[in-house]
Amino acid sequence: MKIAVLPGDGIGPEIVAQAVRVLERLRADGLAIEMEHAPIGGAGYDASGDPLPDATLALAQAADAVLLGAVGGPQYDTLDRPLRPERGLLRIRKALNLFANLRPALLYPELAGASTLKPEVVSGLDIMIVRELTGDIYFGQPRGIHVNEQGEREGFNTMRYSESEIRRIGHVAFQIAQKRNKKLCSVDKANVLECTEFWKEIMIDVAKAYPDVELSHMYVDNAAMQLVRAPKQFDVIVTGNIFGDILSDEASMLTGSIGMLPSASLDQANKGLYEPCHGSAPDIAGRNIANPLATILSVAMMLRYTFGLEDAALRVEHAVKRVLAQGYRTADIAEAGMEKVSTSGMGDAVLAAM
Amino acid sequence: MKIAVLPGDGIGPEIVAQAVRVLERLRADGLAIEMEHAPIGGAGYDASGDPLPDATLALAQAADAVLLGAVGGPQYDTLDRPLRPERGLLRIRKALNLFANLRPALLYPELAGASTLKPEVVSGLDIMIVRELTGDIYFGQPRGIHVNEQGEREGFNTMRYSESEIRRIGHVAFQIAQKRNKKLCSVDKANVLECTEFWKEIMIDVAKAYPDVELSHMYVDNAAMQLVRAPKQFDVIVTGNIFGDILSDEASMLTGSIGMLPSASLDQANKGLYEPCHGSAPDIAGRNIANPLATILSVAMMLRYTFGLEDAALRVEHAVKRVLAQGYRTADIAEAGMEKVSTSGMGDAVLAAM
Ligand SMILES: CC(C)[C@H](C(=O)O)[C@@H](O)C(=O)O
Ligand SMILES: CC(C)[C@H](C(=O)O)[C@@H](O)C(=O)O
Repeated sequence: MKIAVLPGDGIGPEIVAQAVRVLERLRADGLAIEMEHAPIGGAGYDASGDPLPDATLALAQAADAVLLGAVGGPQYDTLDRPLRPERGLLRIRKALNLFANLRPALLYPELAGASTLKPEVVSGLDIMIVRELTGDIYFGQPRGIHVNEQGEREGFNTMRYSESEIRRIGHVAFQIAQKRNKKLCSVDKANVLECTEFWKEIMIDVAKAYPDVELSHMYVDNAAMQLVRAPKQFDVIVTGNIFGDILSDEASMLTGSIGMLPSASLDQANKGLYEPCHGSAPDIAGRNIANPLATILSVAMMLRYTFGLEDAALRVEHAVKRVLAQGYRTADIAEAGMEKVSTSGMGDAVLAAM
Repeated sequence: MKIAVLPGDGIGPEIVAQAVRVLERLRADGLAIEMEHAPIGGAGYDASGDPLPDATLALAQAADAVLLGAVGGPQYDTLDRPLRPERGLLRIRKALNLFANLRPALLYPELAGASTLKPEVVSGLDIMIVRELTGDIYFGQPRGIHVNEQGEREGFNTMRYSESEIRRIGHVAFQIAQKRNKKLCSVDKANVLECTEFWKEIMIDVAKAYPDVELSHMYVDNAAMQLVRAPKQFDVIVTGNIFGDILSDEASMLTGSIGMLPSASLDQANKGLYEPCHGSAPDIAGRNIANPLATILSVAMMLRYTFGLEDAALRVEHAVKRVLAQGYRTADIAEAGMEKVSTSGMGDAVLAAM
């Protein structure tokens, strides 16, 4: 099992270090894990003037899975667009064909108090958002800023989805729904956008292969509303890249503890890139106070989705549940009466719980 | 003051009838109000095979303001796209050049319990979302569903904003912020979409004319998150048509009582279309139980924004506050210990409070 480790920027190196300890522990216990580190994002730019250095991409391509921390920082905000940290992330997603982004929004009972929503609205919340990640307006051509035919400057982008792109993400979403509560909600804006009207049409067709899954459709504005009103109505949500970007962030914040949420980005053969949902938090970088649990839980997703090691995945997830039950809390999820720990302290606790 | 009254579908006719009573009362008290009714949406299709009949558009064009109920219903869902009720709404917005959509998300203290968020997170919430309404991917060309160069079917739409479109909505937003707490947050996805990178550039330029307003920028995914995490950080939000569609629905649901929220859609000369934020609710249509307050509050916005009658606007708004304080509640905002009233019963209460 070859894993490319890309710590990135901000708190990335600190939180990834704790996840690496978890992988080392699994290796000590018998898993054939190989890891190699490389820079990405701002760190890639600093090392070789490119947010996705060739050597980093080559390493990721040769690996079975990628573990990523986070990218971005204020010092890179004034760089030209192609040099910015986010471009490294977008390019690696596209280059590795990681079209299926899985973002669970799961509320840990121990952390229910962190949510800004009333306990009865979110207790037991467990949504899986399946976001298409290599198409849509993120990558659609033509795009740019130019002078239009009326002689005026304008900015423009193209939202675009082909039938095969919709089909393959549809299959991923239906198969995930089959393993859960068999309810899939496809989010679109079919009343206004032809692109998403087409999306809906193809989803309805893909559904024929999954008669055991109940498919529903919701407009994106209504979905943004329903996530606030009654989030527990959802089991699995499937949507395009831009709507998925917005809704998955909204959904993750319903839990109140985004420092707990992992994500997986998979290709057709379940090769994947795993990263926490939160960002690089440059304001707290280097202080050993960031929460490493989302990154550690990303390792669990890696074990499950890329390596098919359900037992090992559960072992990591159970260890995280145990440290929460034991009362260990990093600053972002701190609560009176609980034991406040550092980034590495949380790593210690997880290793002990394993 | 010529007002075109377009009740539309579902609960539209019932709730508009109560708002019309408010206008009649203002007329009885001396305002020179003229009203004429016409069908739109499904009602337009039923009457003359068009969701925006020529006569309706002509009436709206000749009027100073339009009062709209809501459009849409399941019986129209299988019609061809150009015949569907929403098309009537999109076409009237474009034809009247109603580029500035104002959507307040205001929490009434009496209804704080209706929110799914914790009281301390939403008490005192008062956000104004300024959504651009006649541009963006809603109207951008080219668009459609076709077979692409690779011989595969695909759907596509174009996000597009010209400099003048961004400038004019920018000025509206800054001027609204000047009259409120002087904080304007422009929402974009400038890290990915050139169209919104251009949006941001122009907003920064427009800001030079409003040195008293503090302009900030936020990515749309983060905005969707911050609205859940700490919504009171926002005063005025300005954004494009599609992001505004999503965020304004999310923000309105933070209040828990979308039956209370009005909206205004204005042109350059403050001619406007006024409608409740909620939809046509076909499931409860014709039962005299819908909440007419959002439509009545839309009349208050009309008095303020189109007719510049601040006193009359406040009179209507105060009457609504009074009926809430008196304990009158329609079914959607019902609470133990309060007096449940019908649609027309709520209209009676508002008239009495005026
Ligand atoms: C950093 C940015 C380009 C990225 C995205 O929009 O996809 C991020 O928001 C995410 O969701 O992973
Ligand atoms: C009905 C639909 C076309 C409309 C929109 O998307 O603008 C609605 O959602 C709204 O926000 O007024």
